[in-house]
Amino acid sequence: MNQKSVCLLALLFLSTLFSGSLRAEDGYKLWLQYDQVQDATKLQAYRQTVNELVVQGSSPTLTAVQKELQMGLQGLLGKPVPASKQANQQNILVAGTPASSALIKALNLDAKLKTVGDEGYLLLTANQNGKKQTVIAANTDIGVLYGSFHFLRLLQTHQDISNLSVASAPKIKHRVLNHWDNLDRTVERGYAGFSLWDWHRLPGYIDQRYIDYARANASIGINGTVLTNVNANALVLTEDYLKKVAALADAFRPYGLKVYLTARFSAPIEIGGLKTADPLDPQVQAWWNKKSDEIYSHIPDFGGFLVKANSEGQPGPQNYGRNHADGANMLADAVAGKGGIVMWRAFVYSEDEPDDRAKQAYNEFKPLDGKFRDNVLVQVKNGAIDFQPREPFHPLFGAMPKTPLMMEFQITQEYLGQGTTLAYLSPMYKETLEADTYAEGKGSTVAKVVDGTLHNYQQTGIAGVANIGNDRNWTGHLFGQSNWYAFGRLAWNHALSSEEIAEEWVKMTFTNDNKFVAPVKDMMLTSHEAVVNYMTPLGLHHIMGWSHHYGPGPWIKDKHRADWTSVYYHKADEKGIGFDRTKSGSNAVSQYFPPVAKTYGNIKKVPEKYLLWFHHVPWDYKVNSGRTLWNELAYRYSAGVDSVRQMQKTWDSLQGKVDEERFQHVKQLLAVQEQEAEWWRDACLLYFQTFSKRPIPADLEKPAHTLDYYMSLDPKFVPGI
Amino acid sequence: MNQKSVCLLALLFLSTLFSGSLRAEDGYKLWLQYDQVQDATKLQAYRQTVNELVVQGSSPTLTAVQKELQMGLQGLLGKPVPASKQANQQNILVAGTPASSALIKALNLDAKLKTVGDEGYLLLTANQNGKKQTVIAANTDIGVLYGSFHFLRLLQTHQDISNLSVASAPKIKHRVLNHWDNLDRTVERGYAGFSLWDWHRLPGYIDQRYIDYARANASIGINGTVLTNVNANALVLTEDYLKKVAALADAFRPYGLKVYLTARFSAPIEIGGLKTADPLDPQVQAWWNKKSDEIYSHIPDFGGFLVKANSEGQPGPQNYGRNHADGANMLADAVAGKGGIVMWRAFVYSEDEPDDRAKQAYNEFKPLDGKFRDNVLVQVKNGAIDFQPREPFHPLFGAMPKTPLMMEFQITQEYLGQGTTLAYLSPMYKETLEADTYAEGKGSTVAKVVDGTLHNYQQTGIAGVANIGNDRNWTGHLFGQSNWYAFGRLAWNHALSSEEIAEEWVKMTFTNDNKFVAPVKDMMLTSHEAVVNYMTPLGLHHIMGWSHHYGPGPWIKDKHRADWTSVYYHKADEKGIGFDRTKSGSNAVSQYFPPVAKTYGNIKKVPEKYLLWFHHVPWDYKVNSGRTLWNELAYRYSAGVDSVRQMQKTWDSLQGKVDEERFQHVKQLLAVQEQEAEWWRDACLLYFQTFSKRPIPADLEKPAHTLDYYMSLDPKFVPGI
Repeated sequence: MNQKSVCLLALLFLSTLFSGSLRAEDGYKLWLQYDQVQDATKLQAYRQTVNELVVQGSSPTLTAVQKELQMGLQGLLGKPVPASKQANQQNILVAGTPASSALIKALNLDAKLKTVGDEGYLLLTANQNGKKQTVIAANTDIGVLYGSFHFLRLLQTHQDISNLSVASAPKIKHRVLNHWDNLDRTVERGYAGFSLWDWHRLPGYIDQRYIDYARANASIGINGTVLTNVNANALVLTEDYLKKVAALADAFRPYGLKVYLTARFSAPIEIGGLKTADPLDPQVQAWWNKKSDEIYSHIPDFGGFLVKANSEGQPGPQNYGRNHADGANMLADAVAGKGGIVMWRAFVYSEDEPDDRAKQAYNEFKPLDGKFRDNVLVQVKNGAIDFQPREPFHPLFGAMPKTPLMMEFQITQEYLGQGTTLAYLSPMYKETLEADTYAEGKGSTVAKVVDGTLHNYQQTGIAGVANIGNDRNWTGHLFGQSNWYAFGRLAWNHALSSEEIAEEWVKMTFTNDNKFVAPVKDMMLTSHEAVVNYMTPLGLHHIMGWSHHYGPGPWIKDKHRADWTSVYYHKADEKGIGFDRTKSGSNAVSQYFPPVAKTYGNIKKVPEKYLLWFHHVPWDYKVNSGRTLWNELAYRYSAGVDSVRQMQKTWDSLQGKVDEERFQHVKQLLAVQEQEAEWWRDACLLYFQTFSKRPIPADLEKPAHTLDYYMSLDPKFVPGI
Repeated sequence: MNQKSVCLLALLFLSTLFSGSLRAEDGYKLWLQYDQVQDATKLQAYRQTVNELVVQGSSPTLTAVQKELQMGLQGLLGKPVPASKQANQQNILVAGTPASSALIKALNLDAKLKTVGDEGYLLLTANQNGKKQTVIAANTDIGVLYGSFHFLRLLQTHQDISNLSVASAPKIKHRVLNHWDNLDRTVERGYAGFSLWDWHRLPGYIDQRYIDYARANASIGINGTVLTNVNANALVLTEDYLKKVAALADAFRPYGLKVYLTARFSAPIEIGGLKTADPLDPQVQAWWNKKSDEIYSHIPDFGGFLVKANSEGQPGPQNYGRNHADGANMLADAVAGKGGIVMWRAFVYSEDEPDDRAKQAYNEFKPLDGKFRDNVLVQVKNGAIDFQPREPFHPLFGAMPKTPLMMEFQITQEYLGQGTTLAYLSPMYKETLEADTYAEGKGSTVAKVVDGTLHNYQQTGIAGVANIGNDRNWTGHLFGQSNWYAFGRLAWNHALSSEEIAEEWVKMTFTNDNKFVAPVKDMMLTSHEAVVNYMTPLGLHHIMGWSHHYGPGPWIKDKHRADWTSVYYHKADEKGIGFDRTKSGSNAVSQYFPPVAKTYGNIKKVPEKYLLWFHHVPWDYKVNSGRTLWNELAYRYSAGVDSVRQMQKTWDSLQGKVDEERFQHVKQLLAVQEQEAEWWRDACLLYFQTFSKRPIPADLEKPAHTLDYYMSLDPKFVPGI
């Protein structure tokens, strides 16, 4: 070994030591770790391929491109890569558009670039004047940025980059985070600390975190963010706050992230001094038009409004005898001239108690199909109740061919264990996206509705209710990051598998060591089902604690609205359990297209995971396993707890393969999750046993406490107001 | 240059590059940066002095010692230092107590160690068996930890360590942070995000941040923390919460940080089911005794209670016709057997509006001198009003020779610009500590009262209302860290100068480069005076915005309590301005010892900085500068703004001498501060001008807006509820 090799080895050794012990691994860097590639062969290959970086052009977005590539490559390659405005060397990495870069223009990529649209990109290996080039090309600067993150991801996940030929474009146009953040920095259903938006110090103080937030979103293709809670405060539309919003928009703009706001429907009264907010009143329309002008004067690329109206006490057009289309269209007209859109939520339910809340959105919105302006999207939650651990797809999907329907998923974990639960949600998203509505015959998946291909929507969109707060690791639970990541990746390309996404995320976030990647991926892929099992197996839903929705509360009843109680949904009695939504019951199944309605409505054909969602089932009914329903319920609850314990075993076996700080973080939270899983299992089984009058199977763990004990638990100050 | 040198140079170059660009400098690491020593000569000397680390013993605290020294030395020396249980090499660093370490025992340090008590330490250079040793020795493990941090500080600040002979012990026994943190994680008067204490995820989840918090406190000698707001919630005394508190106490214990709680006086009613909280009621006493047993069963070294009673609506003994001593003694008896103390706050004011609120604490507490149990300390704010930008020292200091008086400073910046203002508060702390009470003749400083030397207090204490939140940099404003640091350093040794402390902090936090250190230190040392000038010059006080206390509000009047208004305090009229606290007025001066009373009560002798605190002064009164009072006021307000602009210039000149992230952070906040300073200046001068009817001197900047404009400003959602 010559002296040079010794020197290099010493260098590698030292840099490992430093990265191992001195650097705080608190999760702040998300999946953008850019640690040096540990595989020596790959490292050498990457270093050879990228000798020099050439980003021509100097727009803010191209500046961000250069900065990100320099930072990423320096980290991944363990040495700085010189950046230049001209190709001086062999083996350069060139990134740009034909307009900004002579090098890109010279490659004559017009035909290929046509296929990737405004946001897509090409990653190519090319030769120019005998020089080998790796090329990130796009029609727009933001396309170049998206391509750059893709390129870095290839290195982060140890892919071959010697002969690239990638073309990528998003399947959905508006890929948007919904922050349910209040102006006092509390976050409704937020479990990762408090709101990122430090309104008090805006517009003067731009926290580096805002930029890192935008970077993270750009890295997965998210291109919009609604800053404020759907339970809206009109103050955000006043000039003081618009200046603050504009400062955030300025910080986000280089990363292609558009800003949206929630519009409180009664704002014309509350901050405008009008007597009404009637959408057909000319004064009201004029007020919104003027307000829109004002907003666009501060934020020229303002995205538009998200509106929750006539739902859970929020004001809306129905207060004035108008319908949702009247309300949405008024706002749509106000922003149409500036390219804005209105995302009008279908999560509504009337003041009157319904026989089945699951039917309301469909009943209110389907008749309005075709009545909305072109720049309105109706935003529909994945299921008809409310972000339950598992729901069948919402019957509106496929039912409004003339109205763009936008998907609303939750990334935060309102009913999914909040901040202490490891639940990788990609399988849940995919379950909905791949569900077949049969709207235009077999193969009419929800994904095709949402991406517009089924009904030729001109606008398409997908929203995720953000799980992001000011915790140092952004999402409270480190694995919550995987849900932010998965949402973005699926919003760009819903055809990706949950497994692919998990693998990418684990490699980028932790390590490429397959002894770590494989078991953690397995853990993630089973984690959502584990939570469903110990919370709401077999189609149970809405049986959580009162108000804060933390922990089990199947006994909740006698509240001022029946449809806010648990007994309304599980309908357990001495005969059985479950909500009859067939013809003999609420007939909610009839809202689905006939092949679906037929399957869901038939107790023999309905997928077992939705059994109690659609049917009231006798305790002794034999399910697929051959067990009685009661025994199956007991086994499912127990299996959920067992799965958590299996996750604990898996994680414990990985100590030393990941830095100690993140190892301990997950280990501790898994222990908390085990306790919570036991709590759910024991509380629910004891409670349902008061109806079933049957014993818990002898081979299963017995509850540690009495039902009275579980009913007496009353957690205080649960986060997520 | 041989190959080896090239290799070393390359290595240095690379490590510089990495530290410069890849590492996020977000302030999380506080003053414990441990960056490699950049001065090559010093580096070599340090490396030679510390070849090996020997920490014998394995208590949790000694484990923390070894971990900290290893981490610190690896960072500072740029290479790992081998740790061993035996001295194998020349030039070792040995840390321990005679009890835990044979090496220390062999040094026969008993006589020297006697002088440093339970928490002090020695840093020595010694020879043992011909081997040169650097020694950190103490009587207790925690003393060793404090000494280790001192030793690391020597390297961080580039001190000579070749011939050490340091003995250090704290002057004050209880050095305590007061967190005004609520159980919902809001922080009263908190401007750095929200509470660090994530109660929901406790006790199961111990965030690394808790440990880093304890480390930071230990590094400056803070040995206690009150976790909860003085406006207390009894829930924290219930078993569920005590388990959470115990988990925090366990995490803090290795770092010598004791946990205290605030006791809500009405807890026996609210969580105990009693009908009264009368401190003389045997049932109430029994309840507190039992509660104390319960607390100590969870937290064997629980520190005790901090109590705000009969103040601003908090319940207290006066509700039952008892006095503060009755209340404090009941709680003191409950914890006395377990070594607990009670810190009973003197920040009280009665329900009735007083002629001068400044006099109330003295009037209520002085008659009780000698009536408190031995384990009670009366906690007195530095001044008699409430953490104003500047206050004369509280007249209680020196007035209660038989009762340990504990100092309460604010570290958070309630009236000092909150989260956007650079104000280094050490000069403010020192101003109070060095004030002469004349209680026992000349030289009876407040510091001597607090450290117990004046009146031979057996218990001594000092509290700082914490400025810590869950912002990534802990304190919101990066320079807020310097106040946490200064508080700790002064609590340990109030004889340190503000300049010494600033120099240490700047070097440890940023760099030893004197081109950076000197100007930043200057900036810090003038920063508090700048704020006083543009907010409340010449002894003005309590003229801030309503309720949130942000921004100017000298016009505040007609509220339900006169002593919550501004006009009550400034008393501006056509003749002049200021609160007459002499014999012709409220006679508050009479609460001071005669030499002080005589000085403060005489308009010719009173230090000008307190002029309007004690005197109502005519607008045309000639002050020291020869200007009229009105003109001086205008010049002072303007000088404050100018000082901020000077800070901006200084900081701008330092770009490149500090990482860009922290540079931009401070630069942006200074720009915000400039705006706020102008706002204060303009609003106050325009308002006071309505009384003075005199022009603003022609050479000064004119207000940008009208008084009506400033009075119409109404900031919403100001942090710090």
